[in-house]
Amino acid sequence: NLHFHNFFLFCHVLQESLLSSASGYSNYRGILNWCVVMLVLSNARLFLENIIKYGILVDPIQVVSLFLKDPYSWPSACLIIASNVFILAALYTERRLAVGTISKMTGLILHIFNLTSLLIFPSATVLTLTSMTPVGGVLSLGVYTVLFLKLYSYQDTNRWCREIRQAKAKKLTRSYSCKYINTQSVHTYVSYPGNLTHRDMYYFVFAPTLCYQLNFPRSPRIRKRFLIRRLFEMVRGNWMVPTIQNSMKPFQVPNHLIWLIFFYWFFHSSMNFVAELLQFGDREFYKDWWNSETVTYFWANWNIPVHKWCLRHFYKPMLKKGINKFLAQTAVFLMSAFFHEYLVSVPLKMFRLWAFMGMMAQVPLAWFVGRFLNGNYGNAAVWISLIIGQPVAVLMYVHDYYVIHYGGTT
Amino acid sequence: NLHFHNFFLFCHVLQESLLSSASGYSNYRGILNWCVVMLVLSNARLFLENIIKYGILVDPIQVVSLFLKDPYSWPSACLIIASNVFILAALYTERRLAVGTISKMTGLILHIFNLTSLLIFPSATVLTLTSMTPVGGVLSLGVYTVLFLKLYSYQDTNRWCREIRQAKAKKLTRSYSCKYINTQSVHTYVSYPGNLTHRDMYYFVFAPTLCYQLNFPRSPRIRKRFLIRRLFEMVRGNWMVPTIQNSMKPFQVPNHLIWLIFFYWFFHSSMNFVAELLQFGDREFYKDWWNSETVTYFWANWNIPVHKWCLRHFYKPMLKKGINKFLAQTAVFLMSAFFHEYLVSVPLKMFRLWAFMGMMAQVPLAWFVGRFLNGNYGNAAVWISLIIGQPVAVLMYVHDYYVIHYGGTT
Repeated sequence: NLHFHNFFLFCHVLQESLLSSASGYSNYRGILNWCVVMLVLSNARLFLENIIKYGILVDPIQVVSLFLKDPYSWPSACLIIASNVFILAALYTERRLAVGTISKMTGLILHIFNLTSLLIFPSATVLTLTSMTPVGGVLSLGVYTVLFLKLYSYQDTNRWCREIRQAKAKKLTRSYSCKYINTQSVHTYVSYPGNLTHRDMYYFVFAPTLCYQLNFPRSPRIRKRFLIRRLFEMVRGNWMVPTIQNSMKPFQVPNHLIWLIFFYWFFHSSMNFVAELLQFGDREFYKDWWNSETVTYFWANWNIPVHKWCLRHFYKPMLKKGINKFLAQTAVFLMSAFFHEYLVSVPLKMFRLWAFMGMMAQVPLAWFVGRFLNGNYGNAAVWISLIIGQPVAVLMYVHDYYVIHYGGTT
Repeated sequence: NLHFHNFFLFCHVLQESLLSSASGYSNYRGILNWCVVMLVLSNARLFLENIIKYGILVDPIQVVSLFLKDPYSWPSACLIIASNVFILAALYTERRLAVGTISKMTGLILHIFNLTSLLIFPSATVLTLTSMTPVGGVLSLGVYTVLFLKLYSYQDTNRWCREIRQAKAKKLTRSYSCKYINTQSVHTYVSYPGNLTHRDMYYFVFAPTLCYQLNFPRSPRIRKRFLIRRLFEMVRGNWMVPTIQNSMKPFQVPNHLIWLIFFYWFFHSSMNFVAELLQFGDREFYKDWWNSETVTYFWANWNIPVHKWCLRHFYKPMLKKGINKFLAQTAVFLMSAFFHEYLVSVPLKMFRLWAFMGMMAQVPLAWFVGRFLNGNYGNAAVWISLIIGQPVAVLMYVHDYYVIHYGGTT
């Protein structure tokens, strides 16, 4: 009895509240679930309201018409199929280089020609073909841009392997090797010229990464439940976008939600689904950008495949050539700005530079946030720039597109 | 040069995505900031829209009229001032008990009489006074309920101290003590009868806790910046509620948001503000209920002062008397249901039992969620029960209140 009293007599200890920054607490997994529940519930309500008011708005014919103008011509599908030519060209050039039937210089010229065509050919096609819709255009240009980055990485990596082989032949080194040994796996490993096969090339083309490597790390087996969950998420994501689109107005919050849903759909569900199917082991498609306290951290962590590519094939080689860090960083943003502009301007057939300027505006913004804000304030600033910035950029294009195509001013 | 190649040749490692449950990652502090930013932005928009459309809607006269019908009579303020009688009655009874001028039995009867009056007197006043508004009624009944719990804890703790003193006098024990030693602090410590002062009593009455203890842990100093931040949050919270109220419709999501804002405003900002002013050390006013995967965990963690009181003065004493766990748990919910009903029915002058039934419905809900769902699914179920459950309970009362006061059906 007395023991019981004593135990309860002192029931307070010196401690901070969890939400105070002094507590150092950060487990808010439940808040993420709350966001998902709120999204699903408010969406379900919107969906029901729309059905009650107007009937089913998501017209399958209308969805198809986003991709096709004329059901007998499939320009974007043909364009994507044609990309195989460039893939095979890169592979055959590498094979010649490996056996030495063409010189280093010839190989370089062939690669440069191949890579330049990869950017010019689809954009010329999109600009000249009148049967190409904007959505179809973005899709096929996206595929070509991804291929451009992949094939650039492919020739870079194979060149490095050749240089290592050369050094070895001259007995300059024994410690470097293109063979990656993973004792846990049952896959067989190849070393340099052995990787120049169709199978290896197409595995890389479909793998959810932009950086080529011999012997990618592989996951031990295909987890069926994981695959089904990701597939379910992919399908659900597809269904949600048109629902939100119906209720979307520029400057309103849902505009920003579409980006978040797209992020989850593409970078988590779809990429993990493909990776699981291919037993591709490296699932780091994004890092914790939601906690980013600087703009630089956000850009370095929301899209890891592109970030990894930029670091490996653009930023670090520049540093090695003696270019200073700030200039190299600005160059990365400049290239990123170019590709953003390329992916928007060509399909819309409007050259407005809004996307380019939006990307370049990140440089002073990054400086400002990094200089004046930190901690939760920096994080809030990053979120605000996302919430405000994206709708503004989209609105610019929507405005100009309407002015051109429907004559009047909005 | 070769070293550089080799370093970049292998850029993939076997790893899971952060959002996969297999990764075990849980730092979503940024998501919390996102919610706050979204709330502030969408609110700012609503606020601006309302001002543009209707001018300033938050009428100070209207706000005052929530509390007062007749500016010359302040019934709720008078009622709250009158509560001092009960506080002093409890203190004087304890003083008599300490020196032994009244018997244990007389003391118990006096306390029971005092505590019963604490519940009956304000409710009788609220029910009879026609000048009492519902908001004023809820406020004063809330103050009296808090006082009821505090004074119950006060007499319980002091009784334990007397029992320990008695045991010591009989040399039965030396190891138990009512003195709490904290070497880090500069405050002087008191032991049992020394605590029965006006100063100590009123410190407890104003302290953000319901459980009495001799020598509460104290924070070393008042942090001015912390105080100002909490004050700012309190003022901002006050300004946001009427803004949301304007856009509130039953069954809509904002209804649930009000509860969340109220939670932050009351349990984080206000309680921490008061605690900082009083240098009250124990800031655990809530735990991580947002991650709760069972209904029981939610009820045990969202309101720590009440939970602590229930555990210390109701649940554990029942267990000690040999009552089984499930029955004791149900009794706690029953008492909680009684107080919920008391705080709603009396000020509205309607006895509908919706709040009572809402609380009692938690028992089968807790069983269902605990039995069939776990992990993130359990967490989502808890959120859904909060998002759906609260507006339904509120709607029931709003509906009935309108039917009674404005005649027609809604």
